This record gives sequence, C-alpha cells and structure tokens, in this order.
Amino acid sequence: MIPFVYQSPTKILFGREMQKQVGAEAKKVADHVLLHYGGGSIKRSGLYDEVLRSLREAGVNVLELGGVQPNPRVSLGREGVRLCREQHIGLILAVGGGSAIDSAKAIAIGAKYGGDVWDLFTKQAPIADALPVATVLTIPAAGSETSPNSVITNEETCEKLGAGSPLMRPVFSVLNPALCFTLPAYQMACGVSDMLAHAMERYFTNTSAVDYSDRLLEATMRSIIHTAPRLLENPSDYDAWSNIMWAGTIVHNGILGMGREEDWGSHGIEHQLSAVYDIAHGAGLAVVFPAWMKAVYRHDPARFVQYAQRVWDVDLAQENPERIILEGIRRLEAFFTSLGLPVRLGALQIDDRDFAQMAERVTRYGPVGHFKALSAQDVEEIYRLAL
Amino acid sequence: MIPFVYQSPTKILFGREMQKQVGAEAKKVADHVLLHYGGGSIKRSGLYDEVLRSLREAGVNVLELGGVQPNPRVSLGREGVRLCREQHIGLILAVGGGSAIDSAKAIAIGAKYGGDVWDLFTKQAPIADALPVATVLTIPAAGSETSPNSVITNEETCEKLGAGSPLMRPVFSVLNPALCFTLPAYQMACGVSDMLAHAMERYFTNTSAVDYSDRLLEATMRSIIHTAPRLLENPSDYDAWSNIMWAGTIVHNGILGMGREEDWGSHGIEHQLSAVYDIAHGAGLAVVFPAWMKAVYRHDPARFVQYAQRVWDVDLAQENPERIILEGIRRLEAFFTSLGLPVRLGALQIDDRDFAQMAERVTRYGPVGHFKALSAQDVEEIYRLAL
Repeated sequence: MIPFVYQSPTKILFGREMQKQVGAEAKKVADHVLLHYGGGSIKRSGLYDEVLRSLREAGVNVLELGGVQPNPRVSLGREGVRLCREQHIGLILAVGGGSAIDSAKAIAIGAKYGGDVWDLFTKQAPIADALPVATVLTIPAAGSETSPNSVITNEETCEKLGAGSPLMRPVFSVLNPALCFTLPAYQMACGVSDMLAHAMERYFTNTSAVDYSDRLLEATMRSIIHTAPRLLENPSDYDAWSNIMWAGTIVHNGILGMGREEDWGSHGIEHQLSAVYDIAHGAGLAVVFPAWMKAVYRHDPARFVQYAQRVWDVDLAQENPERIILEGIRRLEAFFTSLGLPVRLGALQIDDRDFAQMAERVTRYGPVGHFKALSAQDVEEIYRLAL
Repeated sequence: MIPFVYQSPTKILFGREMQKQVGAEAKKVADHVLLHYGGGSIKRSGLYDEVLRSLREAGVNVLELGGVQPNPRVSLGREGVRLCREQHIGLILAVGGGSAIDSAKAIAIGAKYGGDVWDLFTKQAPIADALPVATVLTIPAAGSETSPNSVITNEETCEKLGAGSPLMRPVFSVLNPALCFTLPAYQMACGVSDMLAHAMERYFTNTSAVDYSDRLLEATMRSIIHTAPRLLENPSDYDAWSNIMWAGTIVHNGILGMGREEDWGSHGIEHQLSAVYDIAHGAGLAVVFPAWMKAVYRHDPARFVQYAQRVWDVDLAQENPERIILEGIRRLEAFFTSLGLPVRLGALQIDDRDFAQMAERVTRYGPVGHFKALSAQDVEEIYRLAL
C-alpha cells in the first residue's frame, strides 16, 4: 500500500422520503440556494415540487437553474457562475444524476474564481475555494454525490475534462432508492456500467500488498453483478435499488482506492468518445473497458486471472492463464449485453474515421492510464479493438 | 436495508512517518493540547519524543496525562476532565490503542459537561458537546480511531459501559503500520479478534436485502483471516500490518453496518468478563463469540450457513445445514487458537462462580443483542457454553 490522506465528510441521508429533510439540511448551510437540475423528469415525478416545498418551509430563498444536459456543458456552468455571484448564493443544490451534480460542482468552483471556470478544468488555475454543493440523487452511476470530482464538456473545443478538489465533496447527499423507480432500463444499465468501471479503474493497479482493498472491490463488483439483473425484471424493486445505489456511492467515494495507484485510462478513452459523439458515458465504458482489457492484460496476467476467478467465478485449469483471462473478459461483455448495453462501437454507429484525432486528444497532456501508460498509438489500437 | 444517516469526517493520514504531521494537524485545531497515553511503550519506541517534537515545532502548548490502563478507568477520565477545564485545553491527542483513545473521548465529553462524566455512560445525561479528539494509533483493534464510541470501566461499580455520539469521532487520526512492529504477538492476536468481532456483530442481522454490506463484511473477514497469520511469522511485515490496520479502521467506522440492524450481544457479554476479571477484550471475545454462535444459530440457520460457506469456505453437502454451521464455528475457533488466543473460559482461569451475577449485570438495562434478544438466563447459558 502507498501512503494516503483520506477524508470524506459528506453527510448521507439514505432511505425512503429522505428528500423531505433537504430543506432543514440546506438551511444549516445557507439562506440562498441555487436549485440546479436537468429537464422535465423531476417535474413529472413530483420530486421537484417536494424539494421546493421542503426548502421553502425551511425558510430558504430559492433561485433556479435547470437545463443541465447529459455530458454537462461549460456554457451552462458559466451561466450558473454569473447567477451565484449576482445573487449571493450560499449553496448549490443539484437534483438529478451525475450530470446535474458535476455541473453544480463546476459552478461551485467557478463562483469563487475570478476568471473563466474552464481554466480550472484545463489546470491553468488551481482550485482555491468553492461554494458548498449538496445533492438529491436520482441516478446511481457517477458517484458524484460524495466524490471530489466533476467532469465537464467544452462544446467549442470538443474536450471533456475533469477537475478535482476536496472542496468539491458535497456537504450532504440525499439517497432515496425509490426515486430510481422511474429510470428507463437503458439509463439503469449505463449507471451499472459506470459503477462497475469505477471499481475496475481501481482494481487494475501496479501497487502490491493490497489484499484488503482487492477484496472490497471484488465484493462490490460481485454485488453489482448479482443485483442489477433484478432491476430489469422489476424496476420498482426497492431492495435491489438500495444495494445498487449504496454500491454506486461507496465505490466512488474514494475509500476503496486508498493505498492503491488507480488506472483511469478507460475513462479518459471514453470521455473522448462521449465528447465527440455525445453518447452515454456508461454505454461508452461498456465498449471501451473490454477493449482496454484485451490490450493490456499481458502487463500483469496474474491480476487478470484473479479478476476472472474472484469476480466472474471462472473455473478453468490454471495451466492456461490466457484462457482464464479471456473468459473473464467474455463474461464482462456478456453481462453488459444482458443489460442491453453495446460492447462494440458499431452498435453506437461509430466507425474509425476519428480514431487518430481522438487518440491524439486523449494523450494531449501525456500518456493516459497508470496500470499501463498508453500512448496515442496504444489508444488508437484500443479504439480499433472496440470496433 | 433500513434508513440511515451516515457521516464520518475523520481525516486519516496513513503511511510511514505520518506521525510527523501531527503537530501541523493539531495546530489547525487548537493551541493547547492534552497529550494522553498509557505507559512506557511509546517512550521506549521513541514515538513519544517524535510526537512531542512535532507538536512543539508547530507551536502547540502541550500538557500531559499518561497512565491509561487497558480497560480504561473512569477515575483517570475524571482527572483528565479537571485538567482540561483548568488549562483551557482545545484538543485531546491520544497516542496509543483503543484504551488511550476511548479514555480521551471520555475526557472530551466530560470536559464539556457540568456533572460527573460517568453520568454520560449511564445515560443520566445526554452528550451535548465535546472537545475535539485526535489520535496516533499504535494498536489496530478497537477501531476507535474513527468510531463515535468509547467504552469505559467504573472500577467502583464493576461496570463497563459505552457511550456514543457523532461529536466523539476524532478530527484526525494518524495510522502508520510501522508503529505496530513492536506489538507483542498476543496483543496483535487480541486486536485481530476484536476487529473480526466488529465484522461479526454487524454480519448477524435480521435486516433483509443487505447483499452489498454482507459481501463487504465477508471481504473484510477473509482479508483479516488471510493476513493475520503472516504477522505471527514476521511482526515487522509492513505490508501485512497495512492491510490489517486499514481493515481494523474500516470495519468499525460505521460504513459496513449502514442499513443493517447490528447485534452487539457478544460485546455486552464480553464487557462483563473484562470488567470483572480484567482480561484483554480481544481474548474475551475469542471465548464469547463462538459460544454465542452455538447458542443462537437456530434463530437463522441460513445466515450461519452463508457465513460458514463464504467466510470459511466450508464445502459440505447442503442437505445438512447444521453440519455446515458447526464446521464454520469450529474453523473460527481453530483460527483463534492458531493465533494463540483462548477459546474457553478455563484457559483464562475463569470458572462459573460469577455467571449468574454477571448475566444479571449484562441485562440490567434490558435484553442484550438485536439478532436474538438475550435474557439473563440466555446470557448465563452462553457463559456456560464457553466453559
């Protein structure tokens, strides 16, 4: 294990009806709140009304900024920054999934920075301060409800970049599994793919002596794999959603990666895909991750054998490790397919025309990934393996 | 899963030499620090000097209170409370294991309470405020370095009682696995027994739909069982200590029990043993837990079968669940024995003379345990099973 400092102070309120606490919790932080969300789904479900009522009953002044899109845009973030400055906002409350939360985090750091918020994503300026962010989560996937990160798309430059700071961890997050009942099956599947990827980005490491976090990550992956199919059968299964929602939070609050070097190559490679083609992040990951595995498993076959055996119960003779590894990857693909996710770029109507340019962009700031550092050529090869 | 609110804001500094950060971290919290510890071990190892130097270099004024004993006494706590009030202490820094930390927490709540600190353990008064506590951990076991709890012994009344409040979670904790190299094998084993018990108290639950936390707890137990024997072979194995120390923290910071009703019967039953006979808590648990299992497994055989199969790899025919269960308990006992721990009261020179009285004391405030609520008669039976 490598040395680390860990602190995750987000207060989590988990269970049915917990959104009714949002006003009381928000009032402890600020009198003026920016309510930030996407489109109509929270209005159709009644959640919007419930949250607004709770805030008003607590005596909080509410300003609204809706319109967050999947792959949230820096342009909306800039509008949020302007509102926060003009209206003396003290807390940004995101109601939605990872896109609404990531957008709120961008606004939070932008509001306390003198220049353009995009500078904080291109690392031209450090993140020195942030407004507090809180969340009511409706899509378990990104883990942004406790994580210190945000990923934002710049539609002008075709870039999708992340920023991170302990200042960006939400002060509180409401997790009510029943809010997920109305989620379309495809969005559920994309969320499951994203949380599984968050486990795998941490699992594939060069750090030795990580037995405990290996096992926690394996437990997380097994539980997700075991539970997700129940949501296809019954999208209103509160028990299944509870386990999935909790797993999605823990797998990305940082604790399972402590003491390990993490990879994050597949996320970088996927971010280019969704920046250029505007596909769902989880769908992109379902395509990229198996291809990444095929490209890199020779770097540490023993780790991939352990993954295949412990996560996917592959029970083949040890004498041929490659067969074990490839069977593990095959079962990962079969799992994604069973959830209705694509595992090839063709299924997303993406061909090879942009591969070279995307690979260049992925590696613009240097090789990507830590398990195996990947050059532009390596990345292009992974796109090809995903065809 | 049942509804819950979770927040664990303790900052963890993990790795070699992290104790050198203690001054800078303490200075952020207070100018006047009470340094609280046990006996000579931290002086012999040089840790005492290192911590003192770090504090002084950071410009912190240090007052000292040593002399914490295993099963820490309320009498020393009272002395600490008096010192904190008189000397305007702003932070209590415990250097040691669970005893030093629990004692520090008792002082922290007592210093902010007008009456006698023992009132806060007998629940005659609520915990309304607390001084901040920080820790440098030298014995992975109790999990008190991030937990919101303290267990204190009243030597006059022969009581050992716990108190808990979110206010009691340490503000920061230093975890350096190398500080454990000098720990005697028996203390290491007692620590391992304690952390395994912290997993099992959470594992045996009546709450349904807890697949994810089941698996996290199983992963934790398997990693502890897998790693601990390496410390018998080589007490200076940094890698093994890293995994054990991290497991001991996570298993008791609360996160693995969220959404589950927890049991805690065995802890209550053991606390009486160590209050009366002043034995090590971990040794008492190694005796009590298998006896508790034999007494209660019929309450939910399926859960005990899962425990035996997933934690201990018991691979017997499903047609006889009782055989599977008893083999799981046998393997738990064999594991404790392999670490040099007792699994019968006889090995601790304890006979049945106090059983009736102890059982009455354990259940003084009502039945103990949530998986199966135990009467005084049940508790006495468990002591007998442990003979």
